[in-house]
Amino acid sequence: MATPLADRDALDIEGLERLVAHILSAPVSGLFLLGTTGEGPSLSYHLRRELVDRVCSQVDGRVPVLVGVTDTSFIESINVAEDAADAGADAVVLSAPYYFAPDQQNLWQYIEAINDELPLPLYLYNMPGNTKVSFAPDTVRRALQLPNIVGIKDSSGDMRYFDRLRRVVAQRSDFSLLIGPEELLGEAVLLGAHGGVSGGANLAPQLYVDLYHAAADGDIQRTKQLQSQVVDLASSIYRVTASGASVIQGIKTALSLLGICNDLPAEPFHRLVSSERRQIEQAVDRLNLHEAVQSLP
Amino acid sequence: MATPLADRDALDIEGLERLVAHILSAPVSGLFLLGTTGEGPSLSYHLRRELVDRVCSQVDGRVPVLVGVTDTSFIESINVAEDAADAGADAVVLSAPYYFAPDQQNLWQYIEAINDELPLPLYLYNMPGNTKVSFAPDTVRRALQLPNIVGIKDSSGDMRYFDRLRRVVAQRSDFSLLIGPEELLGEAVLLGAHGGVSGGANLAPQLYVDLYHAAADGDIQRTKQLQSQVVDLASSIYRVTASGASVIQGIKTALSLLGICNDLPAEPFHRLVSSERRQIEQAVDRLNLHEAVQSLP
Amino acid sequence: MATPLADRDALDIEGLERLVAHILSAPVSGLFLLGTTGEGPSLSYHLRRELVDRVCSQVDGRVPVLVGVTDTSFIESINVAEDAADAGADAVVLSAPYYFAPDQQNLWQYIEAINDELPLPLYLYNMPGNTKVSFAPDTVRRALQLPNIVGIKDSSGDMRYFDRLRRVVAQRSDFSLLIGPEELLGEAVLLGAHGGVSGGANLAPQLYVDLYHAAADGDIQRTKQLQSQVVDLASSIYRVTASGASVIQGIKTALSLLGICNDLPAEPFHRLVSSERRQIEQAVDRLNLHEAVQSLP
Amino acid sequence: MATPLADRDALDIEGLERLVAHILSAPVSGLFLLGTTGEGPSLSYHLRRELVDRVCSQVDGRVPVLVGVTDTSFIESINVAEDAADAGADAVVLSAPYYFAPDQQNLWQYIEAINDELPLPLYLYNMPGNTKVSFAPDTVRRALQLPNIVGIKDSSGDMRYFDRLRRVVAQRSDFSLLIGPEELLGEAVLLGAHGGVSGGANLAPQLYVDLYHAAADGDIQRTKQLQSQVVDLASSIYRVTASGASVIQGIKTALSLLGICNDLPAEPFHRLVSSERRQIEQAVDRLNLHEAVQSLP
Repeated sequence: MATPLADRDALDIEGLERLVAHILSAPVSGLFLLGTTGEGPSLSYHLRRELVDRVCSQVDGRVPVLVGVTDTSFIESINVAEDAADAGADAVVLSAPYYFAPDQQNLWQYIEAINDELPLPLYLYNMPGNTKVSFAPDTVRRALQLPNIVGIKDSSGDMRYFDRLRRVVAQRSDFSLLIGPEELLGEAVLLGAHGGVSGGANLAPQLYVDLYHAAADGDIQRTKQLQSQVVDLASSIYRVTASGASVIQGIKTALSLLGICNDLPAEPFHRLVSSERRQIEQAVDRLNLHEAVQSLP
Repeated sequence: MATPLADRDALDIEGLERLVAHILSAPVSGLFLLGTTGEGPSLSYHLRRELVDRVCSQVDGRVPVLVGVTDTSFIESINVAEDAADAGADAVVLSAPYYFAPDQQNLWQYIEAINDELPLPLYLYNMPGNTKVSFAPDTVRRALQLPNIVGIKDSSGDMRYFDRLRRVVAQRSDFSLLIGPEELLGEAVLLGAHGGVSGGANLAPQLYVDLYHAAADGDIQRTKQLQSQVVDLASSIYRVTASGASVIQGIKTALSLLGICNDLPAEPFHRLVSSERRQIEQAVDRLNLHEAVQSLP
Repeated sequence: MATPLADRDALDIEGLERLVAHILSAPVSGLFLLGTTGEGPSLSYHLRRELVDRVCSQVDGRVPVLVGVTDTSFIESINVAEDAADAGADAVVLSAPYYFAPDQQNLWQYIEAINDELPLPLYLYNMPGNTKVSFAPDTVRRALQLPNIVGIKDSSGDMRYFDRLRRVVAQRSDFSLLIGPEELLGEAVLLGAHGGVSGGANLAPQLYVDLYHAAADGDIQRTKQLQSQVVDLASSIYRVTASGASVIQGIKTALSLLGICNDLPAEPFHRLVSSERRQIEQAVDRLNLHEAVQSLP
Repeated sequence: MATPLADRDALDIEGLERLVAHILSAPVSGLFLLGTTGEGPSLSYHLRRELVDRVCSQVDGRVPVLVGVTDTSFIESINVAEDAADAGADAVVLSAPYYFAPDQQNLWQYIEAINDELPLPLYLYNMPGNTKVSFAPDTVRRALQLPNIVGIKDSSGDMRYFDRLRRVVAQRSDFSLLIGPEELLGEAVLLGAHGGVSGGANLAPQLYVDLYHAAADGDIQRTKQLQSQVVDLASSIYRVTASGASVIQGIKTALSLLGICNDLPAEPFHRLVSSERRQIEQAVDRLNLHEAVQSLP
């Protein structure tokens, strides 16, 4: 889930409420706050806490709420996790610490140590493009021994790696394997992934739910057709700028064009310029994204 | 300066006092806290504040104190900078935000925006190995227009880049160009750098002061000889493990062998194992590092 | 197809004949010589010519023969292509020149210029791991305008890229989209790829033909089961060493254990040591690879 | 030395003679043919042979001629080395094979094996930007045991690596350590390198000879001043395009503006467009490069 901002250090509270309502208008399986699309690492801690509080209140148990706690500081990760537990969240999500790059031995010791301190179940989050470090399959295999670790989201985009993970996690039937990049959601679920965490679901949640079900049901034709819509959305909305936040800028701009929330990204990024915004506008129109929000209050 | 730790979230207070006294026993030009060797991004914010408070008190104006404020969150950077100003520090040091990689346009806007909010003069800190992003020479050229930005430390290790910086910053006579990697301190100063920020000065501060002066005086033979000692120290102490914190682990282990402070690194890293510690011990003996600390109380 | 070697600059002629016969014992769609698994860039030109001559003679039109002509020298690429045409090959395969990295504009001009000189139809070959450069989707789009270019093999392993290629090449119904990494063959064909070029087909050609058909027929369960066998083969045979030729060393060692051909790789690589060879031997036994070759003369 | 081309597969013979005469008009220590600036890997083998023959004839023993033999094929490297010996060249220069990336063990075995077959002394050539692989200091240490290996040229641009090499090769007094990037020539020689192999010496050979002597004599002020001229030349001539051959395109264009030779680069690169050529023209004028060639016939 994106984090609607009114200002550099203030939530867009009404936008946030509309966004949660919009996403929950489709039968999604859960919400993931403070991930990459949620710009977690860019927000102040008091804002992270406020966001988690507000969303947990609004969701009120209808779906699980997962909270990103990835941080370069062990203690601050724990602090966010404790805030999340207090707010009533259901699980936390953790990637590698990302200033110093740990090797796999350091990474495993880190996971083990932090897991001991967490008040909530833990999902691992493989995001080497941002953190510089991938969870090696053998590190994931070791994590299976810890019952509090309940799944992994892989955003590497490397399907050979993902296939290796699939074989590794098959050893534990209660362990979730989730795919990050939405362009790969269809094929990942066709071949056995348990779901996806898709930024585009901020915009068109029903599309991603439908794609998941088509793939889980083994309906190849429908999977290909819905996946094609997802790739179309991603191609036209996520690559308007060359910056590392192009996906986030695209999603927030589209959300503001849909009347859902403010388009302000967190520092160090900025609103799209008007020519870029017009490109998103054309895509929003062409993709009929307005349809999905007509029923919002 | 390294950050002596007694525990995951506690300073080694006596060790910290000894370390500051040890470094100031040589005529160093200043102290840089919460940089990479200082494990800044790995520490909790209350620990960072406590560290800055204690060191500023102890230094008491004898040399300038610079404080690292690099963060993925704009607001938290400002918070640390304000703490530093309150404590009496002299300047802050800022690298690129390091979860999302900004392009040069984003990076420049970020520098401009954060500089407006800072209560202290600013040094830029080029550290692409950890942040994934380098300050392009043109971005540094733009920064010269902002009088509050007073220098740059380059830890890229790329001397062609450093030479380009040297030509860029020549436009402003009050702008400091400092070299990070200590193996390059001699040649950088020979060719016009204003100084260095060397992790090894935690161990042997006089050696680095001497090397600086030899190079600043154009004494090539002495520069080569002292530089060779520095490379010898770096080769034998900084590469004992393959982890991203090998330098820090080596420095902290040597500091503990010298009786100065605890060897505990911040998460996600750990103490060296005994065979590694023995390698450091042999290097400390061979390099006569004990000599430099005999005069400490 | 691997290139059986008797010595640094000599073919293992009987091994070569057995290998061709072994692969053609399954209903494969063609042979690709002098690719990455074929160690094309490592061989002398007279050896490349001899290989192409011998294989074209032996195949004698039963299946198409494709010949790799990737080179850092434009002229030498043309020379190999002309040799291939003389020998009766059906197409050539070309990656980016790989000493100097061209940008996309240079790469497109290069493709256009070399295509004009080629005596045979051309497949592009995306292999950024070895060449440092990927064919951008827009470059492939431009290539669609040249009727002599008839397909592309993608060995990037990046399925988001592959999905973008799929959308690009859909514009030309006679253009083949082939997947390189065999661990991705199933999902690629399920979603619309026209086939794969799999190194493992040197060992078990029927398995790869079966996997292709299962996926092309939309049989998800069988695709998953056969893909799992492929991943098992790849995991146990392709990663025995850490070198850049681990796949080739594994395939050649397994081929020699199957009695097909010599295990000698081209310089700069060497035979596996005995402990590594034993690992391959155990995998060959466990995977029942002997079964597939019982019928060979 | 650049390779003047009249056409894709033909030397610019008169240009070549003028270029050799121009470079030898300064007291350079030798000529290096078929290196990176010489576009060695891009040329056909008969052209490489013709080039070596013509240059060796023209030089006629006045200075040593070194010939690049880097290749992906072991046998073709040997073939070029034998041609070079026949032509009367003095040494060959070899980088890592560059399609498959060898690890250090493979690289060492390769050096050992090829050295056994070479008819001439061997310089190693560290060029990881193009070959993907660096010669580890320990690999260079092993090479010191082979008397036929007489030096190394380092084009990594990494001065910490270069400093480590310096310490390694100090063990053998007859071993040459040469720096590639000309922006680093001054500081490398100040600190003990034996010389440089500078592409800019195609344009202004006396400048590079002067810089070498200033640094070898320990004249820091003159080193800084001449180095600054070199950086100025490099900044204005080597970065006009974004392609991987920008240096070569700049040098060849400047050479043609000086009336020395054709500006045609080898495939996959092309002549600069007119606006880019004008930038080079302005730089050639501003840097007074015409002066250096007035005395040519």
